[in-house]
Amino acid sequence: MNYKMIAYIIGQLVRVEGILMIPSFIVGLIYGENVYAAFLIPILGSVILGTLLTFKKPENTSIFAKEGFVTVGLSWILLSFIGALPFVIDGCIPSIVDAFFETVSGFTTTGASILQDVEILGYGVLFWRSFTHWIGGMGVLVFVLAILPQTDTRSVKLMHVMRAEVPGPKVGKLVSKIGHTARIMYGLYIVLTFIEVALLLFGGMPLFDSLVNSFGTAGTGGFAIKNISIAAYDSAYFDYVIGIFMVLFGVNFNLYYLIAIGHFAQALKSEELRWYLAIVAGSTAIIAIDIYSIFGNIADSVRYSFFQVASIITTTGFATYNFDEWPALSKIVLIMLMFCGACAGSTGGGIKVGRIILLIKTGLREIKYMLHSRAVVAIRMEDKPVERDVIRGATSFFIVYIMLFTVSIFFIEMAEECDLVTGFTAVTACLNNIGPGLGMVGPIANCSWMSDISKLILSFNMLAGRLEIFPILLLFAPSTWRNR
Amino acid sequence: MNYKMIAYIIGQLVRVEGILMIPSFIVGLIYGENVYAAFLIPILGSVILGTLLTFKKPENTSIFAKEGFVTVGLSWILLSFIGALPFVIDGCIPSIVDAFFETVSGFTTTGASILQDVEILGYGVLFWRSFTHWIGGMGVLVFVLAILPQTDTRSVKLMHVMRAEVPGPKVGKLVSKIGHTARIMYGLYIVLTFIEVALLLFGGMPLFDSLVNSFGTAGTGGFAIKNISIAAYDSAYFDYVIGIFMVLFGVNFNLYYLIAIGHFAQALKSEELRWYLAIVAGSTAIIAIDIYSIFGNIADSVRYSFFQVASIITTTGFATYNFDEWPALSKIVLIMLMFCGACAGSTGGGIKVGRIILLIKTGLREIKYMLHSRAVVAIRMEDKPVERDVIRGATSFFIVYIMLFTVSIFFIEMAEECDLVTGFTAVTACLNNIGPGLGMVGPIANCSWMSDISKLILSFNMLAGRLEIFPILLLFAPSTWRNR
Repeated sequence: MNYKMIAYIIGQLVRVEGILMIPSFIVGLIYGENVYAAFLIPILGSVILGTLLTFKKPENTSIFAKEGFVTVGLSWILLSFIGALPFVIDGCIPSIVDAFFETVSGFTTTGASILQDVEILGYGVLFWRSFTHWIGGMGVLVFVLAILPQTDTRSVKLMHVMRAEVPGPKVGKLVSKIGHTARIMYGLYIVLTFIEVALLLFGGMPLFDSLVNSFGTAGTGGFAIKNISIAAYDSAYFDYVIGIFMVLFGVNFNLYYLIAIGHFAQALKSEELRWYLAIVAGSTAIIAIDIYSIFGNIADSVRYSFFQVASIITTTGFATYNFDEWPALSKIVLIMLMFCGACAGSTGGGIKVGRIILLIKTGLREIKYMLHSRAVVAIRMEDKPVERDVIRGATSFFIVYIMLFTVSIFFIEMAEECDLVTGFTAVTACLNNIGPGLGMVGPIANCSWMSDISKLILSFNMLAGRLEIFPILLLFAPSTWRNR
Repeated sequence: MNYKMIAYIIGQLVRVEGILMIPSFIVGLIYGENVYAAFLIPILGSVILGTLLTFKKPENTSIFAKEGFVTVGLSWILLSFIGALPFVIDGCIPSIVDAFFETVSGFTTTGASILQDVEILGYGVLFWRSFTHWIGGMGVLVFVLAILPQTDTRSVKLMHVMRAEVPGPKVGKLVSKIGHTARIMYGLYIVLTFIEVALLLFGGMPLFDSLVNSFGTAGTGGFAIKNISIAAYDSAYFDYVIGIFMVLFGVNFNLYYLIAIGHFAQALKSEELRWYLAIVAGSTAIIAIDIYSIFGNIADSVRYSFFQVASIITTTGFATYNFDEWPALSKIVLIMLMFCGACAGSTGGGIKVGRIILLIKTGLREIKYMLHSRAVVAIRMEDKPVERDVIRGATSFFIVYIMLFTVSIFFIEMAEECDLVTGFTAVTACLNNIGPGLGMVGPIANCSWMSDISKLILSFNMLAGRLEIFPILLLFAPSTWRNR
């Protein structure tokens, strides 16, 4: 294990995090808030710690898969601790466990909150809270790769880091240089975010609200700055703008790159994209019919249905209605979408549409094996056979995912003895990085009533969900720390 | 597809079913019930139909995997229809859908019921209802193999049939001749059943009750002849006898064969058996502690906890307490046991302990692949590497199982709009062949309130669960019916 190199990368990351807090600090100052201690202590602390850790570049800069995963796992935990400091120092979230939960929820783009009243928070900390979504959505390390000068990264096998952090069954390198890939990704991310901000401003939303809501959309996070989430604006225009952008941020960013360089046809051929859009359309239709009796007109049924479907499948978690009050069928569809998630290579969580297609094909392939026991049946995606390693990775992920899900529910029920729907959907919402569940963790409720142990279990779930389990699980495997 | 041979096997099966109804008919006569129409019509009908179908033995008796699966799938559906006739003709279950549900529940050893009051039923039909558990537990086709003269079966590749009907990741042939294997299995089954009957009689249970409760235990079925199930006897002795026999019938029958021929050490080495017993012990302890406050003493807590754990993990479904009233942690443990199931090669349902061990090993193996990307890591069970086909089969089963589970909940909620816990546990209890779930399908409730469409969906689930999905799913795959 190349500890020096791991410390070096984490050091760079910590320094970057300090710098990323500066905009929030400035926002606080603009609104005349006393945010000096809340932000200057973590900013200076991070920059100093980061500089110390990166003062001397290791001679051996090579890292392998193992170091890549460990770096990602450790850095997400450390960044969440540091990111929690403004909340603790400001005093708006005095408990360190609560602040850690809230920051993990931010960076992992979950959006589950322990705050009972977000509207009493200052602008500075609110901005930071939503900004963590925006940073975490695309990936903190990918961000670092994108902004670091090439000379620092060229010699490092950073593909391993990226593979650990970018969601989905496999990472497609857009261009040969990984740093360049990261920059293109972030470029697209920034452009899309700005278009959303502009459209919200155009509709009359204040600048601050437009920014934080766009951060929440872009990262598919879901932290709102109103207690009743997006419902507070009560505007069909905002619902549709945010709804459509949630869907857009759930698309594999590789496809935007293909579109950007003019390869429309290739982008639209994506099997995952077609399924993703079909699921959004189908679910919107089913729920719209199911909730028609509540609204009594098609326009509202579709509006609220589409927004919630977009919010849940992309694992954002914004709400325009308390869907815990909807009929059971709608709730079941939403729970299914929670597990489904958006496209691989997007900012969304969950199992991912692409992986689910692959799993279904793998499961149904067994029928062919049973009928013709000697056949060798290849699984095809977009007319290309899928490599065996990719299938094995997807099935292993699925098994470990269900295991972790089951064990987590067990521990939550052990710690809380809450009703089954609450326990089940709390874990579902955190492991899939959604935010709201049903019952006592529903869209109008929050996690403030839980014990510290449950908050830590759910924080673990959020991190595991965002990093697709293994980078976090590896930290607990003895063989990871054993030198060969 | 060798249709003639499929019809021939099904014909033999139908005739055997007619004969198997005779004991129930006699029981009815002994109790002076008017059961002539209820039993003689199906008995004579089955024997005549069976004789017609088997009148001419096909020249080509060879069947392959495909025919094996199709035979099993079709015959279970047909046998359930015929088995439902006594209930319909007797008039105790006038609806054919209800009677079909009840019979599927019997043969698949589920034990879910649409009867609101079982105590008003006649002895003849009650005996038949419980006897279906006993037949279905070991497998109808295995039974036919066991009783048919060797000359009829020797030329047929019946391994395919047995593989489709016996639960678990793979079928171990005990001895070289499959007919002989089946006879040994049934011999052990009968001996164990009789020991239970004797022990219940010894405790003072009436003969009729001892028989039907032993049928329910042996098949891990769970149909009771009292509305409050085994709780009606209110006896610690009966609870422990039935509890221990449920655990015994959840053990892989191959192990009893090994013990019978003196290979104790080999039987006790079974990794699955050890895990199975550890799970029973661990779950009993957790629930006993969790429900201690209800009973206020250790003896009762352990008694009720052990019985329920044994009943659920073996997917029997007998109840001695309304566990829907227990704390959430106990309910979560029971739900987890519902999915877990007993050992492969037993009469129990669920995913099976052996398959779960295999899945966990497969999932965690991915950690090794991530750490050392070029390694080839074999999965070992009992110190022997597991064949790749077995792993692929287990993972495919798991994926299809979760798919079917999800789709079924969706359709149940679409048809009923019942609360989420009811819909979730109704499917859980039927797909895993348990019987009672929670909420409106809990241990003191039943499925009588459901619509016909839900009853058919749940019947499908019960059949799919008992036959481990693929033999039933294959019936709907176009490629099954396509001739090559």
